[in-house]
Amino acid sequence: MTPEETLASTALNSWRLVIGRLNEYIEPLSDEQLQQEVAPGRNRLVYLVGHLTATHDRMFPLLALGKRLHPELDEAYFTNPDRTFPDPIPPSAVKQAWNEVNSKLSAAFEGLTPKEWLQKHSAVTDEEFAKEPLRNRLAVLMSRTNHISFHAGQAILSRASTQAHPVSR
Amino acid sequence: MTPEETLASTALNSWRLVIGRLNEYIEPLSDEQLQQEVAPGRNRLVYLVGHLTATHDRMFPLLALGKRLHPELDEAYFTNPDRTFPDPIPPSAVKQAWNEVNSKLSAAFEGLTPKEWLQKHSAVTDEEFAKEPLRNRLAVLMSRTNHISFHAGQAILSRASTQAHPVSR
Repeated sequence: MTPEETLASTALNSWRLVIGRLNEYIEPLSDEQLQQEVAPGRNRLVYLVGHLTATHDRMFPLLALGKRLHPELDEAYFTNPDRTFPDPIPPSAVKQAWNEVNSKLSAAFEGLTPKEWLQKHSAVTDEEFAKEPLRNRLAVLMSRTNHISFHAGQAILSRASTQAHPVSR
Repeated sequence: MTPEETLASTALNSWRLVIGRLNEYIEPLSDEQLQQEVAPGRNRLVYLVGHLTATHDRMFPLLALGKRLHPELDEAYFTNPDRTFPDPIPPSAVKQAWNEVNSKLSAAFEGLTPKEWLQKHSAVTDEEFAKEPLRNRLAVLMSRTNHISFHAGQAILSRASTQAHPVSR
């Protein structure tokens, strides 16, 4: 691998690690368990998974990688706060959509060269990008990786243990 | 900037953004507010800040960037769960240590070339690194960036609002 390729692969690996760690936690959970709130009065686990799925689904057009798979999740899990709209599908189906979106995104990511990672994303104009070259596809990947971590930290609070000890790696 | 430099700068920018966003939240908080738990029975805010500080302080030796600044925080905030040891310093001093460690780390990071980011970190042996070149300094930076996000997601739950709406960027 060239240094460029190793740099891009390191970022992609971080994305995969973070998703894998969240999946270890949510995969075994039943529909009933996914209805739990992460803390009293806070978002339900299924809302967080739906919210992450809708956010990732939006990466297809944002990174010019194709069409969205699940725009039907937006109303309940992206545009509105938890419990203001009925769940459109059962929690297990939300988990399935989550896995489907990530697996299709991952396949598309593997096809990108380092130079393609450094291209602008579709929410930036050519003028803006000329001034701010860090607003590239890789920045979106890292931002979304952090976004998963952000909600994973919340999700883990629904664990029964009294101390939710941090994943310090 | 060369593509290599842009790739490394994008990662460093992600680190800065995530710290900046957490700081916006914790900077205005008083010592009393930092004593709040993020959710009933969970870690206090000051524990999370102390824990992040100790974790970042360990990056100096891990990335071969110099000596630690605040090993005295380990017992209360890293090695043990919250509230098993008395706070060694007031919350405002923990915040100060957090800023000091990050500012010194950031200065050291700015001096690293892309090739130096791809060197192994000190917790990997030469043999392991030959097989797994993604266990490099940049991977540690990304892992720590995600670690901040993980705890930032929890910290934000201490907000008074009924919905802790996700930072989706």
